[in-house]
Amino acid sequence: MEYQKPKGTADILPGTTSLWQKVEQNAREVFNQYGYRGIRTPMFEDYNVFSRNVGDTSDIVEKEMYDFHDKGDRHIALRPEGTAGVVRAYVENKLYGPEYPKPYKVYYMGPMFRYERPQSGRQREFHQIGVEALNNESPQIDVEVISMAMALFKKFGVPNVKLVINTLGDKKVREDYREALINYLKPHYDELSKDSQERLYKNPLRVLDSKDAGDKKIVAEAPSILEYLDDESQAYFDEVQSLLKKLGIDFEIDTNMVRGLDYYNHTIFEIMSDSSVFGGGFTTVCAGGRYNGLINQLGGPEEGGIGFGMGVERLMLLLQEENPEFAPQDQLDVFFASADAQGDELAFEVLSKVRQHGIIADKDYSGVKVGKQIKEAFRRNAKYFAVFGSREVEEGEFQLKNAATKDAVDVKVADFIANPAQYLK
Amino acid sequence: MEYQKPKGTADILPGTTSLWQKVEQNAREVFNQYGYRGIRTPMFEDYNVFSRNVGDTSDIVEKEMYDFHDKGDRHIALRPEGTAGVVRAYVENKLYGPEYPKPYKVYYMGPMFRYERPQSGRQREFHQIGVEALNNESPQIDVEVISMAMALFKKFGVPNVKLVINTLGDKKVREDYREALINYLKPHYDELSKDSQERLYKNPLRVLDSKDAGDKKIVAEAPSILEYLDDESQAYFDEVQSLLKKLGIDFEIDTNMVRGLDYYNHTIFEIMSDSSVFGGGFTTVCAGGRYNGLINQLGGPEEGGIGFGMGVERLMLLLQEENPEFAPQDQLDVFFASADAQGDELAFEVLSKVRQHGIIADKDYSGVKVGKQIKEAFRRNAKYFAVFGSREVEEGEFQLKNAATKDAVDVKVADFIANPAQYLK
Repeated sequence: MEYQKPKGTADILPGTTSLWQKVEQNAREVFNQYGYRGIRTPMFEDYNVFSRNVGDTSDIVEKEMYDFHDKGDRHIALRPEGTAGVVRAYVENKLYGPEYPKPYKVYYMGPMFRYERPQSGRQREFHQIGVEALNNESPQIDVEVISMAMALFKKFGVPNVKLVINTLGDKKVREDYREALINYLKPHYDELSKDSQERLYKNPLRVLDSKDAGDKKIVAEAPSILEYLDDESQAYFDEVQSLLKKLGIDFEIDTNMVRGLDYYNHTIFEIMSDSSVFGGGFTTVCAGGRYNGLINQLGGPEEGGIGFGMGVERLMLLLQEENPEFAPQDQLDVFFASADAQGDELAFEVLSKVRQHGIIADKDYSGVKVGKQIKEAFRRNAKYFAVFGSREVEEGEFQLKNAATKDAVDVKVADFIANPAQYLK
Repeated sequence: MEYQKPKGTADILPGTTSLWQKVEQNAREVFNQYGYRGIRTPMFEDYNVFSRNVGDTSDIVEKEMYDFHDKGDRHIALRPEGTAGVVRAYVENKLYGPEYPKPYKVYYMGPMFRYERPQSGRQREFHQIGVEALNNESPQIDVEVISMAMALFKKFGVPNVKLVINTLGDKKVREDYREALINYLKPHYDELSKDSQERLYKNPLRVLDSKDAGDKKIVAEAPSILEYLDDESQAYFDEVQSLLKKLGIDFEIDTNMVRGLDYYNHTIFEIMSDSSVFGGGFTTVCAGGRYNGLINQLGGPEEGGIGFGMGVERLMLLLQEENPEFAPQDQLDVFFASADAQGDELAFEVLSKVRQHGIIADKDYSGVKVGKQIKEAFRRNAKYFAVFGSREVEEGEFQLKNAATKDAVDVKVADFIANPAQYLK
């Protein structure tokens, strides 16, 4: 019987996992520096946590949700993204109470799920790293979140990313603009792509980021949301820009950048890369925005929040292309080979002892010929290796060989066991 | 509308997550030292990966599996444990090929799922850390895996754990013993507990670890598997014991220790703790065993394997009780308060600059009174704090206060931004 991983999932194998760990460790360090702490919410939630009245994005909610009924007939969904679960946890655990820091700043990393349309070629299980700053409505936090995302890409050593921002104003601004946009697009209905025709009344802002060439031409002449900002929304957007400039963070404004979910407002941003790994042109590698309505929608107080998320699989592609040196090399401090049964016994004992000193070590377990064992030492990227046989057992001494320089030194077994680190520099 | 986490799941919140991260980081370090590397398999698998003919453990397979049908009518199960997915990945990716190390040593950590019977009070989403050494049948590997598990508890600083081992022999031994056990138990059928009566023909070995007092009395006189070992199984078990002794690892033998799944053979082991957090008596905190039939059952070659798993939630209870100092304290290097709007602007700028030097820093965003902001600095466990106001802006100098000693030093803003680390020792 042959078994296969489920459609749309991947095995992340040794060699690759060390890169994932380094990315995650770097992200934790940067987030920690900015006062963000880890939170872990369940892999699945009540379906309604994700399918609240979140605008007309029926694509995500109905078609792409990885949902099912459990044995107790509960309608459950594997989480499609990180924000809703974090906000649910924030509200349910009353983390807005006076005993908690404000803003309440958290990050998450882990698997997300969507039951994608088969033709799209996207994964059903994928991974995201994201942050949320809950319980605040200050432009300083918008800029903190943005500069933290930029710091992350700097830490990853990825060059040539650009920051693009926009504002969606507050609820009233968004509604006014929506109406104006529909009025502008209506006369062009017949010229629009089928997708955009469908979105025209359900979610007209999404027409703005259509990839269709015909749509793009029409959209180029559309009114800009910036013309519809009220004083407060304008002042908020001005302050975000002013703070970004003060911190020396370059940015572009793209008024056609939108978000499908209608709880987004004020600042939205994307970090984009023109790495050739994405086939040319700028591609989004991190997307974030402010969602002042969401906490309340999920049963909590009327408080603002802002966050971002980035897809890990995409980030891995970017890193491998733009900064391959970032990937750590799996490496052993020392590998022990053996020439005979007596030597093998000694090798096992020495191995066990040196590991107690924190040394990264391994030995041959296959009993193949010594030459093959030494090859294995090189393949495992060992800095040092040694061969034990009955002579080494008898003499209590062996040759420790440096894999790179081929230098060999005679070492007493007892001395080596007592302090292996001094020999393995 | 109020939303709640699904039944049987938990939110792991900031404060707790830092302990989880430290546990995971320590585990990664120990595993890495022993030559084990990370592997990540999907959160769910084809139902059949877990429900193969794995013996008569219908409890786990039928009742406890968190399974469902996806939108394509595939029978899917959220993974109930780590081993089957790892072995499926090993076979599917042909990691037994000549280009890979032997044994192929991996570890995993992450969520597992079971749809438990409501009365048991166990979680439906829980977490495990585990390792697998695939492609080997050497007693040295059994001892490596056991000593690695013991090293982990040592690293965690948990005292008073004990190692208990047993052997299940090979397939023939296990079958012989099974028959002998049924023959011994049959005459006692009426005296056995209901659970044990059910298990008598389906899985008689499980009667040996019944917690029922009446069962225990009967089991005390039962034949021991050690009487049924053939020469090869005896030699294997002898070698494991001899190597453990050579490495100075104390152990007990408990011939009533068993495994439900019938692919287990030869060495099985448990690490137990009598911590009062478990209510007295020894409780298993890590369980492992050899499974020489499993790789073949999942479509791979006839190769052996051995691994262990430990429940993270249980480990956290143990650590909090037995080594509370292990839990890291969330801490800031410095916290900035402000007395007025000008000071707040400066605070934001200084904050942004010092973070670029890798300093763990934060500021007040709430605009509350200075006294409350300073309280927040203490609550956030900041090593240093400072208050900025229009005077500090004017003079370009501020007082940096040590939260512990209350010492204050005057620092020029420009000097601080240029090299904050020298002031934050």
